[in-house]
Amino acid sequence: MRAVQLSAYDTKPELVEVPDPHADGALDVVVKIGGAGVCRTDLHIIEGQWEQKSGVTLPYTIGHENAGWVEEIGSAVTSVKVGDPVILHPLATCGLCRYCRAGDDVHCVASAFPGIDSNGGYAEYLKTNARAVVKLDTSLKPADVAALADAGLTAYHAVAKAARFLRPGDTAVVIGAGGLGHIGVQVLAALSAARMIVVDRSEPALKLASELGAHHTVVADGTQVQQVLDLTDGNGAEAVIDFVGEGGAIEDGVGMLRRAGNYYVIGYGGTLSIPTIDVISTEINFIGNLVGSYNDLVELMVLAAQGKVSLHTSTYPLAEFATALSDLDAGNVRGRAILVP
Amino acid sequence: MRAVQLSAYDTKPELVEVPDPHADGALDVVVKIGGAGVCRTDLHIIEGQWEQKSGVTLPYTIGHENAGWVEEIGSAVTSVKVGDPVILHPLATCGLCRYCRAGDDVHCVASAFPGIDSNGGYAEYLKTNARAVVKLDTSLKPADVAALADAGLTAYHAVAKAARFLRPGDTAVVIGAGGLGHIGVQVLAALSAARMIVVDRSEPALKLASELGAHHTVVADGTQVQQVLDLTDGNGAEAVIDFVGEGGAIEDGVGMLRRAGNYYVIGYGGTLSIPTIDVISTEINFIGNLVGSYNDLVELMVLAAQGKVSLHTSTYPLAEFATALSDLDAGNVRGRAILVP
Amino acid sequence: MRAVQLSAYDTKPELVEVPDPHADGALDVVVKIGGAGVCRTDLHIIEGQWEQKSGVTLPYTIGHENAGWVEEIGSAVTSVKVGDPVILHPLATCGLCRYCRAGDDVHCVASAFPGIDSNGGYAEYLKTNARAVVKLDTSLKPADVAALADAGLTAYHAVAKAARFLRPGDTAVVIGAGGLGHIGVQVLAALSAARMIVVDRSEPALKLASELGAHHTVVADGTQVQQVLDLTDGNGAEAVIDFVGEGGAIEDGVGMLRRAGNYYVIGYGGTLSIPTIDVISTEINFIGNLVGSYNDLVELMVLAAQGKVSLHTSTYPLAEFATALSDLDAGNVRGRAILVP
Amino acid sequence: MRAVQLSAYDTKPELVEVPDPHADGALDVVVKIGGAGVCRTDLHIIEGQWEQKSGVTLPYTIGHENAGWVEEIGSAVTSVKVGDPVILHPLATCGLCRYCRAGDDVHCVASAFPGIDSNGGYAEYLKTNARAVVKLDTSLKPADVAALADAGLTAYHAVAKAARFLRPGDTAVVIGAGGLGHIGVQVLAALSAARMIVVDRSEPALKLASELGAHHTVVADGTQVQQVLDLTDGNGAEAVIDFVGEGGAIEDGVGMLRRAGNYYVIGYGGTLSIPTIDVISTEINFIGNLVGSYNDLVELMVLAAQGKVSLHTSTYPLAEFATALSDLDAGNVRGRAILVP
Repeated sequence: MRAVQLSAYDTKPELVEVPDPHADGALDVVVKIGGAGVCRTDLHIIEGQWEQKSGVTLPYTIGHENAGWVEEIGSAVTSVKVGDPVILHPLATCGLCRYCRAGDDVHCVASAFPGIDSNGGYAEYLKTNARAVVKLDTSLKPADVAALADAGLTAYHAVAKAARFLRPGDTAVVIGAGGLGHIGVQVLAALSAARMIVVDRSEPALKLASELGAHHTVVADGTQVQQVLDLTDGNGAEAVIDFVGEGGAIEDGVGMLRRAGNYYVIGYGGTLSIPTIDVISTEINFIGNLVGSYNDLVELMVLAAQGKVSLHTSTYPLAEFATALSDLDAGNVRGRAILVP
Repeated sequence: MRAVQLSAYDTKPELVEVPDPHADGALDVVVKIGGAGVCRTDLHIIEGQWEQKSGVTLPYTIGHENAGWVEEIGSAVTSVKVGDPVILHPLATCGLCRYCRAGDDVHCVASAFPGIDSNGGYAEYLKTNARAVVKLDTSLKPADVAALADAGLTAYHAVAKAARFLRPGDTAVVIGAGGLGHIGVQVLAALSAARMIVVDRSEPALKLASELGAHHTVVADGTQVQQVLDLTDGNGAEAVIDFVGEGGAIEDGVGMLRRAGNYYVIGYGGTLSIPTIDVISTEINFIGNLVGSYNDLVELMVLAAQGKVSLHTSTYPLAEFATALSDLDAGNVRGRAILVP
Repeated sequence: MRAVQLSAYDTKPELVEVPDPHADGALDVVVKIGGAGVCRTDLHIIEGQWEQKSGVTLPYTIGHENAGWVEEIGSAVTSVKVGDPVILHPLATCGLCRYCRAGDDVHCVASAFPGIDSNGGYAEYLKTNARAVVKLDTSLKPADVAALADAGLTAYHAVAKAARFLRPGDTAVVIGAGGLGHIGVQVLAALSAARMIVVDRSEPALKLASELGAHHTVVADGTQVQQVLDLTDGNGAEAVIDFVGEGGAIEDGVGMLRRAGNYYVIGYGGTLSIPTIDVISTEINFIGNLVGSYNDLVELMVLAAQGKVSLHTSTYPLAEFATALSDLDAGNVRGRAILVP
Repeated sequence: MRAVQLSAYDTKPELVEVPDPHADGALDVVVKIGGAGVCRTDLHIIEGQWEQKSGVTLPYTIGHENAGWVEEIGSAVTSVKVGDPVILHPLATCGLCRYCRAGDDVHCVASAFPGIDSNGGYAEYLKTNARAVVKLDTSLKPADVAALADAGLTAYHAVAKAARFLRPGDTAVVIGAGGLGHIGVQVLAALSAARMIVVDRSEPALKLASELGAHHTVVADGTQVQQVLDLTDGNGAEAVIDFVGEGGAIEDGVGMLRRAGNYYVIGYGGTLSIPTIDVISTEINFIGNLVGSYNDLVELMVLAAQGKVSLHTSTYPLAEFATALSDLDAGNVRGRAILVP
C-alpha cells in the first residue's frame, strides 16, 4: 500500500510503497483509512520534537486522527465486522490494567499510539486493535469526523468533566475558540445549561462561538479579566476551561475564577505559576485534561450524529499530503485539513 | 471581663478590662472560653501581617481557635442552650447565601471571623453566632479540643476529601507531620484503608507519625522523591497531601505523584509552578484546601470523642498569654499552647 | 387582610378578614402574594386527608405554592429587601441542623410548611422566613411562576438528579407528561443530551411533550413496555423517571429499565413491589424524590428566566378561589390555576 | 485430568477423567486449582434450579469460587505468567463492551461464568481468560481466599459502595452476620469510621461480629427495629446493608432507615414491597448489589493481604467433594468448605 513515511527528522516525509498491515494478532483490527486529520503535532513530529518522547524507530507512517472502514479483524474480535465504518480512539489499549478496567483507559500502562509511536493513518490502511475502534452511526462519514478522534476527544473530555459540576446560573469561561475550543463550545452547549462566556483574540473566532452557543463573547484585548468580572458581578466564573495554556492565558484565567472554582487545563505551552496562598485562600482547583476515554469518544460520536458537534474540514487526496502540511504550516487551512483516499 | 487586646501593630498585646459581650442579636451566642489555641497566626497578626487582609479596627481581642460553654443565647437560637460545652467553628456564617446552603459555608459571602476581623477568644467570653457552635460530646473537654477548631479542621477537611477517592491498594503521601500534618495522619488512618507514606525532615515527627498510623516514613534528606518512587514500583502515589507548601515541598510532591493523581495543597508560603505540558500529559489535579465546613467540624469531633484524633497540649492561664506567645515564638511549646480560664 | 381559611374539615373554606402578619422574628419575611397555586393537595386538605399528618389547628389559611413581593423583613434579614419580587420555597427551614447545612434542607429537622401546617398563600400576605425566599429575575412575574414553587421544584429535583448520571447515547424514559411530568420534560431537555422517551395515556399530553423536547413518545396502550424495549435494542433505558407511581406504572417502568439502571420515584399512590432477586440480579436502584432544595429552586428560576421552563396558567382573583377549586376538581383548568390579588 | 461433573440434574455429580483444558484462545488462561469454594449455589445447581437460567449443556464441571496458579496462557496474555498465584473473578468478561470499559464489568454483555454456564473449578484445572485473573500477594494461599471470589466479592462491592457515603457520626446497620455478612462487617470496619450496628438472630454470629468490628449488636428477637431506633435517637441509620433480603428482614430494615437513607439490597429471596408514598416522603433509596468488579476483587485481596478480611475454612481433598457437599447441606461445615488438590 501507499503510506506517507518519515525517514529522518527535519526532512520531508514521502509517499512510498510499504507492505499492507494484517490482523495477525487475535485482537488486531486493520482499518481502510477514510480520513486522516492533519494536525500541528504532525509538523512537530517532522521537526523532531517528539523524538525522545515517542522513541519511535524511523521510518514510520505519521497520522494520529483516523477514521475509515474495518478491512480485516483478528480471531478474537467480536465487536466490529469487516465493512463497518469506524473512528479510531488514538490509543490501542490493553484492556487488562487497572486503568483500562476503571474507564481511565487513557492511562493504560501498555498502550500503543499509532501515528506517534507506531505506524499511523497517512496511508491506505492502518492496524490498531479492537479496543480502539468505535463504530460510526450510518449518518457519519469517516472523513467528516476523523479530526474529532484526538482534538475533538480532548475537548469533549474536559468539557464533559466540567459540565458535571455546572448548574443553571453558574458561569463557565472558555478561553480560546480555535480548533479545540470551538468544539468545546459546542459540547458545553449540548451538555450544560450554564452561562458560557468565550474569550479569544480573534473576532471571527468569537463570531463563530456565538453561533455555536456562547452567551457572551469577550475580545482578549487586555481588558478581558475585567470584562469577565463585570459579567459575573465581580465574582468570577465557577469554571474556566482553558484551551490556550500559554501566553498570559493562565494568569488571566485564574483572575476570572470564582472562589471554590475549577480551572480546567487543556492547552499547554506555558507554565502554571501561582502562590500556594492563592490556591488555598480561595480554595480553587486545577484539573489536568488529557485525551478522552473510549467511552468519551462514543459519546462524542453521539453528539456528532445528532448534529450537535460539527467541524469545518478541507480535504486533500493522500498524495497531496505535502500541500496539506504546508497549508497548515502557513495558516491557510479553513477548518481542519483531512487526507482522503 | 478580661481580654487580651492588641492596641497597635508590632506592640505587645495587653490584658485589659473590657465590657462583657451580650447576645443582642437573635442568633448571637456568647461563649465562656474554656480553651483558646495560641497559634502562629497570632504572632503574625501582632506583627501586622494581617492588617490589610483583615481590615480590623484596633484595639481588638485576638484568638481564633476557641471552645468553651454557652453563656448566653439570642432569641432565635434553638440548637444549643446555656451551659452546653461547645467548640467554635472559626467562621460565623450567614446561613442564607448559596455557599452556606450548599454545605460550603467556608465560602460564605457574609461571614465574620472572630479573632481575625472581630473580637476573639483570648478573653473570658466571646460572641459568635448559632451557626458556629458545635456541641461537644460529654467526653471532650473544651481545653483539649480548642486547637482542633482551625488547624485540626483544615487537616480534616483536606484528608477527608482525599479519602473519598482512595481505595485499598492506593498510596497516599503525607508531606509534613507537624502541627496540621500529625492530625492529618490520624484522620487518614481513621477514614481510609490506603497505604500511608509520611515524609518529614524530623525523625521525631516521623516516629510520632508511625505511632499514629503511617505505614512507611521517609526522612526528607534529599532522596525523598526516589524513596517514594521505590515504595510505589516507580509509579508514585495516587494522592499527595501537602501540609508544607513551600521550600521545595511542592516540586518534591509533584515528583511523587502518579499519573491521574491528586495533589492536595494545604500548606502555603511557596509557589506552585509547573509547566502546563506536565499537568496535561499526566492528567494530574491540584486541589486547594481551606478550613473545613461546620459539618466537617462535627465529624472531626466524632473522631475526637472516639479517641481516633488527639492532640498534645500545654495549658497556660489567660493571664500568662505573653508567656504562651513567647514560648511559641521560641519553639518551646510541647504540642499546642492553650489559654485556659 | 383577606384570607381563605378552612374552619372545619369537609366544609367549604371561606374568605374572611384576619389580622395582617408581621415580621416579628429576626428572620421573618412577610410577602405580599402575587400568585398562589391552586393544587390538588388543597382539595385533599379540605377533605381532611392531611389532618393527622399536618396536625394544624383550624382555622388556618391554605395555599403552599406562593410568589409575590417582599412586604416586611425581620431585623436580621439581609438577603432580600422590601419590594423584591420573590418565589417561596415551600419550607421555612432552620439553617442550623445537619441537613440544612449539607444542602438537604428539605430534610430540615425543624421546618415549617406554610399552607400545610401554618398559614399559607390564599391570602393577601404570608409570613415565612429568610431561608425560604428566592429573589426573582426581573423578567419573571410572581403569578407566572408560583406553581413552580412546589410541583415544579419536585420535578426539577428528580430530573436534575437523573441528569447528573445521563450521558449522550443514554436513554431516559419519562412516565407521565401531566402537571409535574411536562415540567420534567423541559428540565431534562435543558440539562441533558440523553435521548428522551415520554410515556403517557393521553395523546395531547404526548404532543405537548414532543414540542417541549421529547425525542420519542409512546402511548400507554398496553404495549408501552415493548415499545420502549424496541426503541432501546431490547435493553431498556438507563433511567426511568416516574411521575405516576401507581396504577401499573411501576411494573411497567421496571420492565423498561436497563441493567444497572436508576428508577426515580416521584409519583405516588401505588406500591413498589419487586422480588429482591430482580433487584440484585440486574443491580438496579430505586431513588426516592421529595421536593427540591432551596438551591434547586434558584436553579429552576434560572431556567424559567431563560425561557427553558414555562407553565400554562389560568388566573383567578383571590375572591374567586371557590371557582378555582371547583374547576380544578372538575378537571376544567387549562394548565395550573393561580390565585392573584 | 480429574473433574467433578454433573451429568443429570438431581443426580449425584461424579469425579471423572476429562481432557485437560488448554489456552487455545489468545486471551485464555488455564489455572491449576488450589482451592475451590463449595457453595450453597452448587447444591441448587445439582437440584436443577439453575437449569433455565444458565442454559449449560450437561455434563459439565461445577465450582465458581476458584483460586490457584497459572498453568498455561494464551498468546496475547501479558498480565500474568505461568506459576503466578491467582484468584479468579467469577466472570470471564469481554473487555470491549461499554460496561467493561466503564468499570462495571459485572454487566458485561458477553461474559462467561465458569462453574455456572461453563466448566468450573471442582477439577484439577480450569480455563478462564486474562480479564478474570487477579494476581495474589505472596502472603495469600489460594485455598485460603478462594471463597472470597464470589461471596466475599459481593459483600465487598456493596459495603464499599455504602462506605463512600458514610461519614463519622453516621450509623450503618448490617442485617445478617453469616457467610457474606461477616465479611461485610470486616470490610466496613476497614473502609469507614461510621458506627456499625449488626443485627442477627444468632448470638454466636453476633459475638463474631463484635470481634470483627461491630460497635453494637442486636439480637433479632422481634424488638430489633426498636432497638436500632433507640440506638439512633429515634432517627434510624443513614445506611442499612441487608445480607438477608427475606423473611421480614426488609420490612425491618426499612423501619431502621433514616430519612434520606440508603438501603443496600444484597440478600434475596423475599420481595421488596413498599408504598411509593413512603419512598418519596422520606426520600429513601434502594440500591441493588450484584457481585463486584475485577477492580473490587483486587481491592478485597489487598484487605486480605493486610489481614483486615479473613475467612474460616475447612478443606477437603477434591476426591472427597461429595462429603463436602453433604456436610454443607447438613450444616456441618465450620466456616467455608474448600476443595483442595
